[in-house]
Amino acid sequence: MPRYKLLIEYDGTPFSGWQRQENGPSVQAALEAAIQKFCGEEVVVRGAGRTDAGVHARGQVAHIDLSRDWPTDTVRDALNAHLRPAPVVVLHAEIAAEDFDSRFSAVKRHYEYAIIDRRPPLGLDRNRAWHVPRRLDHEAMHHAAQVLIGRHDFTTFRAAECQAASPVKTLDRLEVSRAGEAVVIRASARSFLHHQVRSITGSLKLVGEGKWSRGDLQEALEAQDRARCGAMAPSCGLYLVRVDYD
Amino acid sequence: MPRYKLLIEYDGTPFSGWQRQENGPSVQAALEAAIQKFCGEEVVVRGAGRTDAGVHARGQVAHIDLSRDWPTDTVRDALNAHLRPAPVVVLHAEIAAEDFDSRFSAVKRHYEYAIIDRRPPLGLDRNRAWHVPRRLDHEAMHHAAQVLIGRHDFTTFRAAECQAASPVKTLDRLEVSRAGEAVVIRASARSFLHHQVRSITGSLKLVGEGKWSRGDLQEALEAQDRARCGAMAPSCGLYLVRVDYD
Repeated sequence: MPRYKLLIEYDGTPFSGWQRQENGPSVQAALEAAIQKFCGEEVVVRGAGRTDAGVHARGQVAHIDLSRDWPTDTVRDALNAHLRPAPVVVLHAEIAAEDFDSRFSAVKRHYEYAIIDRRPPLGLDRNRAWHVPRRLDHEAMHHAAQVLIGRHDFTTFRAAECQAASPVKTLDRLEVSRAGEAVVIRASARSFLHHQVRSITGSLKLVGEGKWSRGDLQEALEAQDRARCGAMAPSCGLYLVRVDYD
Repeated sequence: MPRYKLLIEYDGTPFSGWQRQENGPSVQAALEAAIQKFCGEEVVVRGAGRTDAGVHARGQVAHIDLSRDWPTDTVRDALNAHLRPAPVVVLHAEIAAEDFDSRFSAVKRHYEYAIIDRRPPLGLDRNRAWHVPRRLDHEAMHHAAQVLIGRHDFTTFRAAECQAASPVKTLDRLEVSRAGEAVVIRASARSFLHHQVRSITGSLKLVGEGKWSRGDLQEALEAQDRARCGAMAPSCGLYLVRVDYD
């Protein structure tokens, strides 16, 4: 029973999130339906990151077990044919080791968050970035962001409904830079708490607006108190861009 | 009666094109409706480029005459408020000279065409680029493109329904480069024939696939025969990015 590793891109806008649920379409369910159309098998697709409603992916990773040893290009092309018109695409399929697990074998996850900081609303980039109508100081955001690097109790930046056993995580990278009209935040860690990147982004935006200093961000972290977090950034600016494995 | 110059961005996907028409929503009509809601005036919005259905703009220019001398930021913000939820945005508004004409005063128009050349279909960039499932040789495309630079009879690359008085145009720039996953074609001229950029793009794609040589492109141009043009590229990859005035 070969295990396949899938690399997946999606526009999260029309979905209630990665995870299959009672109400609303999910990326997972779209993939499972395409697999059933392709080979008749009812399988569960396991993803590396359970992205929320509206969150996008350029490099989500999932694994599935199929009873047959298909050419991997056939798996990719057939799933893409059956996924239409949903904006979910299998970029690459390969055979993985029997014990490969997209979620538990992951050693690092990379997210990007895009903010467009201009007075006019978004036309072409609607649902692709967070529109902030004031110019942000991305250098101040980057400078402040560095207080979050390393191993910390991230309770301040954690969703109330987060199911992780511990609020302690190690943030390896948190970089803020400007790319044209966009301020891009790049965050990397072995794993993240629920809503961690969006919560951090919401607080960094306060720094960019000059409302918070680097010290304020540090104090918010140290308070270990959800109430001290800046208003969470919306899902539409967040992208799961890559997942690393050993 | 002050004249206002507007800089406009739009996602062309839901529109039947720039120009107002009997059937289907147009960008022009969306702007005219927003102006009426803002100040009660029925005006005609004149655009620099009459983009086709599905073609996008990052820098369309239009002009309108209003009876009152509004602060230009008020015009921009009020139109944006009334344009919602249409993906049309006024980026900038300014007072223009009485004889300014967005179309006839333009001295140069700049278009970009985006192709994503990969086997898997497009997820996040659907309706934003042309999906070509084979890798293109963008250097060969750029090399061949240079035969089109200058003053030529572009009958080969002209829509049957084109209303221009003459098929002779001067193409100032035609550059092909790779930006990540995308092959980007940048075309600049004082003015273009109807479908000229998309027709040229369709032929350059044949060069990128190795089906046409630079000489084939040259011969197609010299034939002055629409039947010699490669299949026209779809509208979703085309962007009007800038219009220059003296």
